[in-house]
Amino acid sequence: MAPLAPLRGFPVSRIKNDTFLTALLREPTPYTPIWLMRQAGRYLPEYRETRQRAGSFLALCKNPSLACEVTLQPLARFDLDAAILFSDILTVPDAMGLGLYFAEGEGPKFERPLREERDIRNLAAPDPHAGLRYVMDAVAEIRRALDGSVPLIGFSGSPWTLACYMVEGGSSSDYRTVKALAYTRPDLMHHILDVTTRAVTDYLNAQIEAGAQAVMVFDSWGGTLSEAAYHEFSLAYLQRIAAGLTREREGRRVPSIVFTKGGGLWLEAIAASGFDAVGLDWTLDIGRARARVGERVALQGNLDPAVLCASPQAVAAEARRVLEAFGPHPGHVFNLGHGISQYTPPENVAALVEAVHRYAHTP
Amino acid sequence: MAPLAPLRGFPVSRIKNDTFLTALLREPTPYTPIWLMRQAGRYLPEYRETRQRAGSFLALCKNPSLACEVTLQPLARFDLDAAILFSDILTVPDAMGLGLYFAEGEGPKFERPLREERDIRNLAAPDPHAGLRYVMDAVAEIRRALDGSVPLIGFSGSPWTLACYMVEGGSSSDYRTVKALAYTRPDLMHHILDVTTRAVTDYLNAQIEAGAQAVMVFDSWGGTLSEAAYHEFSLAYLQRIAAGLTREREGRRVPSIVFTKGGGLWLEAIAASGFDAVGLDWTLDIGRARARVGERVALQGNLDPAVLCASPQAVAAEARRVLEAFGPHPGHVFNLGHGISQYTPPENVAALVEAVHRYAHTP
Repeated sequence: MAPLAPLRGFPVSRIKNDTFLTALLREPTPYTPIWLMRQAGRYLPEYRETRQRAGSFLALCKNPSLACEVTLQPLARFDLDAAILFSDILTVPDAMGLGLYFAEGEGPKFERPLREERDIRNLAAPDPHAGLRYVMDAVAEIRRALDGSVPLIGFSGSPWTLACYMVEGGSSSDYRTVKALAYTRPDLMHHILDVTTRAVTDYLNAQIEAGAQAVMVFDSWGGTLSEAAYHEFSLAYLQRIAAGLTREREGRRVPSIVFTKGGGLWLEAIAASGFDAVGLDWTLDIGRARARVGERVALQGNLDPAVLCASPQAVAAEARRVLEAFGPHPGHVFNLGHGISQYTPPENVAALVEAVHRYAHTP
Repeated sequence: MAPLAPLRGFPVSRIKNDTFLTALLREPTPYTPIWLMRQAGRYLPEYRETRQRAGSFLALCKNPSLACEVTLQPLARFDLDAAILFSDILTVPDAMGLGLYFAEGEGPKFERPLREERDIRNLAAPDPHAGLRYVMDAVAEIRRALDGSVPLIGFSGSPWTLACYMVEGGSSSDYRTVKALAYTRPDLMHHILDVTTRAVTDYLNAQIEAGAQAVMVFDSWGGTLSEAAYHEFSLAYLQRIAAGLTREREGRRVPSIVFTKGGGLWLEAIAASGFDAVGLDWTLDIGRARARVGERVALQGNLDPAVLCASPQAVAAEARRVLEAFGPHPGHVFNLGHGISQYTPPENVAALVEAVHRYAHTP
């Protein structure tokens, strides 16, 4: 239990760059802070080197020192305003006993997907300090390594998104198995979501306890649902998570962010779900999104990650377009509208960070 | 040239069931008409048998008699209110010389994707009566076989969607090659889209001339763009197509439908683009969509195709939900929000068609 001790009473003044946390609370910052979803990842040669050393993606996730190492890699290269825990959204169902593994070139898989009523009824929320202890150790180690330079973001998948993988047994192009379950046996679907919601809430609170200074919930597959099904099977559980999160730690508010990819149509409902900020994919005009949510939440986003595969000039121009569309801050955290592509040239990320930081809103 | 002759002066009264055409023009019908995107397809054993006989998917598309045969198969099983030409959206770039082929389990590919400026500058709109003659022959043969029972829909891919395949060389998970071209060399991108727009307009008008009684443009990948990029690279060209379509044939209006998958955020702009009807994917509540477009267009959609993998009871319940959300017709053509899944049990399609046809709006 030693790793947590140094964090108790960690003074607030030790965060040298708190623009990210400040913007999430819609308070003024000298510039628009920026971080990138999946910023520690395959587009960086140093990441590929560490991953090779770890042996596999999962071994990298489960080794706190290596997870810490890759978490810090993008911060050494780019002037980013936040770090995000290096991990995978499927650690929670893995800790539930489903047997996560990664088949080469096929993405995540579960050895024991949820298909039988008995297995569904036996599902239990894992103790985050037991089977997920390696995540908390990584959080604590990263906090020590960051030494108050920038805040650390913890994260989890949303209950619906985790359920998609748990029932499908892996990625899917149409989610027909999990949707068929939702439409034919809503009682079983809600049981999975209820257990997973408790698991996610405990998991995020344990990350906050271990040192995460903001948390984000990735609802990667909420946007594959109809509006009615989204409200019933995803948003209702996101609301419960928001209500159950630890709100303060180390004398500071711990801001929370929710991101439903493809959820632009439901923005007003998402903004009212209890999170401090809403992540946007790149299909929304962020200025129109801001007008729709008003003062309710901060917004995070939303450059098309494919722009980073264009030229540095195009990257800077499209970044300006997003900043201009949002208008004068506060309340904007710049990000991509989805995870960074493995094919991104790192010099384009440098061009992006520079363009965002030097951008000055003309009143 | 003989196949076209019998259609000249084809009397309007010969369409026994014109509910589909009537609903597209927002005029009253005795019930809500229904057809299904990709209704002739792999979920039908008789389709799989014909495809096997043809040797390949492309051979099936290019043989007018076999294309006619599979077009009619779903109508023999289900009481559908329209037939749609069996073909592929990539016939146009194939006729442009890009060399379409289908790699087993990998989807469509082009032998000569557009990557070099010289190839892009040399791109030309094909004469639809030359390299695409087999499509016009299929349209004429299907019209004869339908014998005025239900209307026949012709279709094309949208310029942006065709350009995605032409530049990527096949399917893509992120469209980074075509988007990088659009962001770094918008001049070349607009040249591709300009030529393709002329090709699509000619192609659809040739289908109308050959006997198609309505036409639909599939903008399958428009929804992968940012709002600004969608307007610039997709919607602007859809507007040009709408303006260039033949409006009347055989003494009847030829209604046109546009479908941008993932375009729900931009519905008002799409509804103002000049088409008679807008296809909706399943993420929009169709009642809210109707309120947004008002009297401007008819709406087509929008059941989640994954519902068809659930039980017949769930299918009927979700179909009712869509019908109730739309409210009393006119102006609604029932459809899925995307193509039917190959894993759909045919009995669920029967349950869907029956549920839609027997549904009576209570005033």
